[in-house]
Amino acid sequence: MKHRALLAVLAAAFVYLPAHAEDGYDLWLRYGQQSSYPPSAEHSRELVHSDASPTLAAVGRELASGLGGLAGAPIPVVREPSRPGALLYGTPRSSALIAGLSLGLERVGPEGYVIRSVTLGGKAATVIAGNTDVGALYGAFHYLRLVQTRALAQNLDIVSRPRTRLRLLNHWDNLDGHVERGYAGQSIWDWHKLPDWLDPRYTDYARACASIGINGSVLTNVNANATSLTPAYLEKAAALAGVLRPYGVRVYLTARFSAPIELGGLKTADPLDPGVRAWWKAKIDEIYRYIPDFGGFLVKANSEGQPGPQDYQRNHADGANMLAEALAPHDGIVMWRAFVYASSATEDRAKQAHAEFLPLEGRFAKNVLVQVKNGPIDFQPREPFSPLFGAMPKTPLMMEFQITKEYLGFATHLAYLAPLFEEALDADTGSARKGSTVARVVTGELDQHELSGMAGVANIGADRNWSGSHFDQANWYAFGRLAWDPDVSSQAIAEEWVRMTFSNDPAFVQPVVEMMMGSREAVVDYMTPLGLAHLMGTGHHYGPAPWVSDLSRPEWNPAYYHRADANGIGFERGPKGSNATGQYSPRVAAAFADPKKTPENLLLWFHHVSWDHKMSSGRTLWDELVTHYDRGVGKVRQMRLTWEAQSGRVDAGRFAQVSAFLAIQEKEAQWWRDACIAYFQSISKRPLPVGSAPPAHSLDYYKSLKFPYAPGRG
Amino acid sequence: MKHRALLAVLAAAFVYLPAHAEDGYDLWLRYGQQSSYPPSAEHSRELVHSDASPTLAAVGRELASGLGGLAGAPIPVVREPSRPGALLYGTPRSSALIAGLSLGLERVGPEGYVIRSVTLGGKAATVIAGNTDVGALYGAFHYLRLVQTRALAQNLDIVSRPRTRLRLLNHWDNLDGHVERGYAGQSIWDWHKLPDWLDPRYTDYARACASIGINGSVLTNVNANATSLTPAYLEKAAALAGVLRPYGVRVYLTARFSAPIELGGLKTADPLDPGVRAWWKAKIDEIYRYIPDFGGFLVKANSEGQPGPQDYQRNHADGANMLAEALAPHDGIVMWRAFVYASSATEDRAKQAHAEFLPLEGRFAKNVLVQVKNGPIDFQPREPFSPLFGAMPKTPLMMEFQITKEYLGFATHLAYLAPLFEEALDADTGSARKGSTVARVVTGELDQHELSGMAGVANIGADRNWSGSHFDQANWYAFGRLAWDPDVSSQAIAEEWVRMTFSNDPAFVQPVVEMMMGSREAVVDYMTPLGLAHLMGTGHHYGPAPWVSDLSRPEWNPAYYHRADANGIGFERGPKGSNATGQYSPRVAAAFADPKKTPENLLLWFHHVSWDHKMSSGRTLWDELVTHYDRGVGKVRQMRLTWEAQSGRVDAGRFAQVSAFLAIQEKEAQWWRDACIAYFQSISKRPLPVGSAPPAHSLDYYKSLKFPYAPGRG
Repeated sequence: MKHRALLAVLAAAFVYLPAHAEDGYDLWLRYGQQSSYPPSAEHSRELVHSDASPTLAAVGRELASGLGGLAGAPIPVVREPSRPGALLYGTPRSSALIAGLSLGLERVGPEGYVIRSVTLGGKAATVIAGNTDVGALYGAFHYLRLVQTRALAQNLDIVSRPRTRLRLLNHWDNLDGHVERGYAGQSIWDWHKLPDWLDPRYTDYARACASIGINGSVLTNVNANATSLTPAYLEKAAALAGVLRPYGVRVYLTARFSAPIELGGLKTADPLDPGVRAWWKAKIDEIYRYIPDFGGFLVKANSEGQPGPQDYQRNHADGANMLAEALAPHDGIVMWRAFVYASSATEDRAKQAHAEFLPLEGRFAKNVLVQVKNGPIDFQPREPFSPLFGAMPKTPLMMEFQITKEYLGFATHLAYLAPLFEEALDADTGSARKGSTVARVVTGELDQHELSGMAGVANIGADRNWSGSHFDQANWYAFGRLAWDPDVSSQAIAEEWVRMTFSNDPAFVQPVVEMMMGSREAVVDYMTPLGLAHLMGTGHHYGPAPWVSDLSRPEWNPAYYHRADANGIGFERGPKGSNATGQYSPRVAAAFADPKKTPENLLLWFHHVSWDHKMSSGRTLWDELVTHYDRGVGKVRQMRLTWEAQSGRVDAGRFAQVSAFLAIQEKEAQWWRDACIAYFQSISKRPLPVGSAPPAHSLDYYKSLKFPYAPGRG
Repeated sequence: MKHRALLAVLAAAFVYLPAHAEDGYDLWLRYGQQSSYPPSAEHSRELVHSDASPTLAAVGRELASGLGGLAGAPIPVVREPSRPGALLYGTPRSSALIAGLSLGLERVGPEGYVIRSVTLGGKAATVIAGNTDVGALYGAFHYLRLVQTRALAQNLDIVSRPRTRLRLLNHWDNLDGHVERGYAGQSIWDWHKLPDWLDPRYTDYARACASIGINGSVLTNVNANATSLTPAYLEKAAALAGVLRPYGVRVYLTARFSAPIELGGLKTADPLDPGVRAWWKAKIDEIYRYIPDFGGFLVKANSEGQPGPQDYQRNHADGANMLAEALAPHDGIVMWRAFVYASSATEDRAKQAHAEFLPLEGRFAKNVLVQVKNGPIDFQPREPFSPLFGAMPKTPLMMEFQITKEYLGFATHLAYLAPLFEEALDADTGSARKGSTVARVVTGELDQHELSGMAGVANIGADRNWSGSHFDQANWYAFGRLAWDPDVSSQAIAEEWVRMTFSNDPAFVQPVVEMMMGSREAVVDYMTPLGLAHLMGTGHHYGPAPWVSDLSRPEWNPAYYHRADANGIGFERGPKGSNATGQYSPRVAAAFADPKKTPENLLLWFHHVSWDHKMSSGRTLWDELVTHYDRGVGKVRQMRLTWEAQSGRVDAGRFAQVSAFLAIQEKEAQWWRDACIAYFQSISKRPLPVGSAPPAHSLDYYKSLKFPYAPGRG
C-alpha cells in the first residue's frame, strides 16, 4: 500500500508535459470544447456554407472551427439547410434565403448585424446577417462569444451596430521593429521580410481585431518616418493590407509632415506651397495605387519635435486640410492629433491643446478628425477629461486612449483599463445640450457628425501572448468593445473576457472580475493618488521619480506637476492659478475651480492644497496621501491572494506567469509607495500616520536607482 | 452523387484548423508518436526513476515525456526494475544497480556516458550511465535521438565523451534586447523582468543545448557593456544560471575592459595597475557570490573600437592574464578573442590576428584560451582556415564559428553551415606533426592541452522558431554535434536532424539532406565565388555592394578585398603581394603562394588573377566567374523544386514558411548575381559567356538601393 502510494506520487511527478504549454497566444478566441454546447437542438446542427467573398470565406472558417471546437466534433457543412438547427450567415446579396427574410437590416448600417432565430421551410434555423459581408463577420464573432460565455439564448433576436465609425489601433511601431512604449517585444510587423513573407500572425491579428469590431490599423508610429511612404514600404504595407482586408481592417499610415523635403527633395513643406501640395497629391494618388482602400493619415505635428505647419507660420488646420484635400477623392481621412505642447510655451501644459485648437474650430475640412487624448496631459493613471471634448462641436473629435501601459506599470502590473476608459467616456462635458457626455461627443451623436472615431494606442508585440501579459489582453479587448459601444459597462466586458479567455467557472469568474475591476484604482493609489500625475522616471517612465526637477523643459519635470512645498502640494489650476479650469464648460469649471467641489480623486490636479487640509475622511491631506499609498500596496497584496486561490482553476502556464507578475507588481507598488513617501515627507516634514511603516530605504537610495535599459523608450 | 462530391469538397475546405499550427518551437526535440516504437520488447517498458539531483530529475522528465510521446502512451515509472525492458539512468553514486554494473565508465570522463543493454536479475534492461549526472543527461538525449531517428539497435553498447571541453554559444545580445547580427527577433533574455520572471523558454533553451552537448552560454555581446557586471545585472544572470544549471549549461559573461573606469570610478584600466587588478579581483569574487559555478569571461579587446590593454601600451597577454589570475581561484577561465584589426594598420587585414598574437605564444596564463575565428577575416561564405591554427602550440586555441548567418543571407536563405564548419575543422595545418588538422588543434589533442573549446555565435532569438527560419535550427544543432565530436560528418548530422525535426520518410530525408548539403556552396556561388569575400552592403551587410570604396577605413570597403581592375581581380597575398601565405606552415604556404597550386575555390582570396587566366574548366576566369554566379542562382532554383516536391510530407505551417523563404532566396540570389556581374563587367569590359543573361537592371540601379532598417545591425 505504501509502495503503491509512492508510485502514484512518482507518476504524478512525471505527468506529461503537453506538447505546448498554454501560452496565451489564442487570446479570447478560444474554442475548446464546452460541456454545455450545443445548448439546444435549435442551434448549429449544421453550417450553411457561403464563400461568396474572401470575408464570407473567413466567416465560414471561423464558425466551422469555432463551433466545431466548442461542440467537440465537426459541424456538418451544407449548401442548403437540411434539418432543424441550421446556421446561415451572409447578406441579402450573398444568400437568397437571407434575402427572403424580413430582418430589419436597414437599422444596422454598413457594419452592423442581426442575429435571429427564424423558421425556414418549417425548420428552426439561426441567421447571422449584415448588409455587408463584414457585418456578417462581426455577427459571427458575436454568436461565437455567446457560445463561449454560455449566454446563447433559445430565441435569438440581436441587433447591433457600431456607434463610432472609425475603431482604430494606433501602433507606435518603428520600421526597425522597435515599439515605442511597447512592452510586449518587437513589432509584429516584420517589415524586412514583407511583402514576400506573410506571417500567419498577421491573420490572427486581423481575426482578433475583427472579433471586437476594430476596423482599422495605423501601422506606423506617430513619431513618423518618411521612409514608410517610399515605394518599397508602400509595397510592404499593401501586402499587409491584403491580409487584413477580408477581416474588415483597413490600413492607415502616419504622415511625416516634412516628407516633401525628405523624400521629394523640395525646399519646404509649407502646406500652402503649391509644390508641396502637388507632392502630397501625387504621393497620395500613388498610395491608392498600392492600397485601393487605404484609410488615410494619422498626423502628429508640431509636438515633441515633430515637424508641422507651424514651422511655416501656418496652423494645424492648414496642415490637416492640405492632406485632406488630396485624400478626399479617394475617401481617405486625416486624423490630426491635438497632443501638442510647445518647447517655448510658458503656459500650463494642461492648457495647451485647448489653447491651440479652439481657435481652429470650424476651419477643418470635412474629412478631418481631431484626435484628442482622454485627458489634458498624457495618459496618466487618472486625469480629468480633456476640455476639448464639448468645446468644438463643429469638429469631429476622435478619442485617443492608450492601451499600452506606459504610465500604469508596463506589462507586469495588472491594471484593467476599461474603468479608466469608461470614466472618461461617461464624463459629462457640462454643455447646455442634453446627454453631453464625452462618449456622445466622440460618437458624433451629440453634434450629428457622420465621421467619428476612437483610437487605442496598441499594446501588441511579438511576445507569444501578444500583449506582454495575459491580463493586458483584456485592455485590447475592452478597447474594441467600447469603441463599438461606449455604453457597455467595464464590468460586463471584464466578465465576458474572463469567460472567453480563462473559464466559465463562477468560482473563478467572480473573484477575478472583482480583482480586475479594482486594479486600476490600485495603480492610482500606489503611483499618483488624489489627482497627482507625472511622477515617473525620466525617459523610460519606469518607476517613481517625483524628485526630478532639473530637466531642460519645465514640463518634463515631475516637480512641475506636483509642486510640493513646505505648505502643501498640487498644481493650482483654478482662477487664482493657471485657470485651466476655465477651459471647461461653466458648470464643470465651477466645480473644478472650487477645491471644496472638486472630486477628491482630482484634488491635486486642480489645486495646490495645504498638507493640513481636512479631507472628507477627517484626515489631513498628508495623512490621506500616505493612506492612499498604503492602500494601493494593500490592494495588490489582496490581488495576489485572490489569484493564488485560483490555482487549479486555470492552466499552469498562464497561472505561473500571472503569479510572477503580481509578485513583481507588489514589489514595485511598495517601491512607488516608499519612494514617493520618502520624497514627499522630506518636504511636508510631517510624521507618518500611526500604523504606516516608514520607507524601507532612504530617499537617496531611491534617487540612486538607474534603469538604462527599461523597455519601450521613445 | 454530384451533390455528395460537392459536400466533400466543402468539408475539406472547412477542415479544422489545429489549435496551434506547427511553428517550429519544438526544434529537434520532437516526441510525436513513432509507429516503429518501441522497437523491441527489450526497450523502455518502464522507467526506473531517480531524482537524486535536479539534473537527474530533468533526465527523468525528458525520458518520461519523450518516450511516452514516442510510444503514444505513458511509460510506467518505477523505483526498481519490475519486468524485462526497464530503462535505468544515473551514475554509480545515484544508483546501486548502476554501481553494481561493470560499464567501463572510467573511459568517458566527467561528461561522457555509456548506453548499454544489460541483464539485471535475469531480466533484460538498458542503462544510461555517466560519471556525473550531466553525463547521464547527455546519454538520455542520445538514447532519445536513437528512437527519434529509428536507429535504436537491439543490443546497445555506446560509449561517448566530448572531444572539446568548452562547447559554448556566444550570444551577441545587448541589454536592451537587440541582438547584434541577430535575425530571429529580440534577445530571448528578458533582462528587464529578470530575476523575478523566469520565462519557461529559458528551460527549453537549456534542454536544446543539453541535447547536443552545449555546456556553456556567454549571455552578453562581445561588444560589451559594463552594466552587465553591476549587482542588479549579476542578480539577473544568477537567476538565469539557476535555470540552466540542471542542464549542465554554465553561464559566462563578456568583460568590458574599461569597466574599472566606468563602474569603479578608477582613472585607468591599465592591467598592470594594482588598483585595476584589485578592482577586477573584487568584482570577480563578487560574481562568484552570485553564481558559484560562473564559467568566466569572453573578451573582445582593442578591436573595432573596444577598449583593451593596448590603450595602456600593454599587450593582449597582459590583459588576459590579469583577468585569469582573479578567475583562477574559482576555476574560471578567460576566452580572449584574436579577432583584432587596428584602424591604423596598413597591413593586409587577413594578416593582423596572426601578427598580433604569434609574438604572445607561451605568454598566456594556464586558464586562458585564445578564441580564433575559423578564417582570417570574418565569417565569409568561404575563407581559408586561420593561420593561427597550428602556429601557437603552447596556447589553447578555441574555435569561433558563426552560427548566425551575418554573411550568408540572414534568416531567409537556406544555408546549412556544417559543411563550412567541417571544411575548417578538416583542414590540414601542415605542421610536421601527424594528423595536424585544425580539429585536432582545437580539441587540444595535437598539443595535449587539457583546456579546449569551440564557440558558436548564436542564431537564437525570440522568434517562435528560435532561429528565424526552420532550417537555421540545423546550424545550431550541427554546431553542438561538431563541438562534441568534430569527426562526425556534416551529412550524417544533416540526416539525423532532418529525421528528428521533420520526418523519417526516406522520400523526404534523402532529397532534403541533399538540398542542405549543397546549400552553402550555392551561397558561395551567388555571393562570393572563387575566393572572393566581403562584397556585402555596408553596415547591415545585407545584399551586394562590391562597388563600395569610399568608407573611411580601407578594410571596410569591398573594393579593398576584390581589387578588381582592368587586368584582373583578386587580392595578391602571395610573396609578391601581402605575403599572408607566409603565415601558414611551409607546406600549406607553398600551395597557397602558387596560383597554380591554390585551390580554385580560394584562388581570388590569395591571388590577383588576369580576367583571361585559364581555369581548369578551360574557361577564362571572367567566364568562370559568371558561370559560378549563374550556377548559384540555378542551385537555388533547384532547391525550390526539391522543396515544392515535399508538399504533403511535412506540416503546412513549416512547409509554407520554407517555401516563402526559398522564394526570397531565389530573388536575392538573382540580385547578388546581377549586381555583382553588372559591377565586375563595368571593370572587366568583357562580354558575358554565351547563354548567360545580362543583369535585369543597370549598375546604377543596384547602387541606388538602400536598406536603412535591415535587421541585426551592430
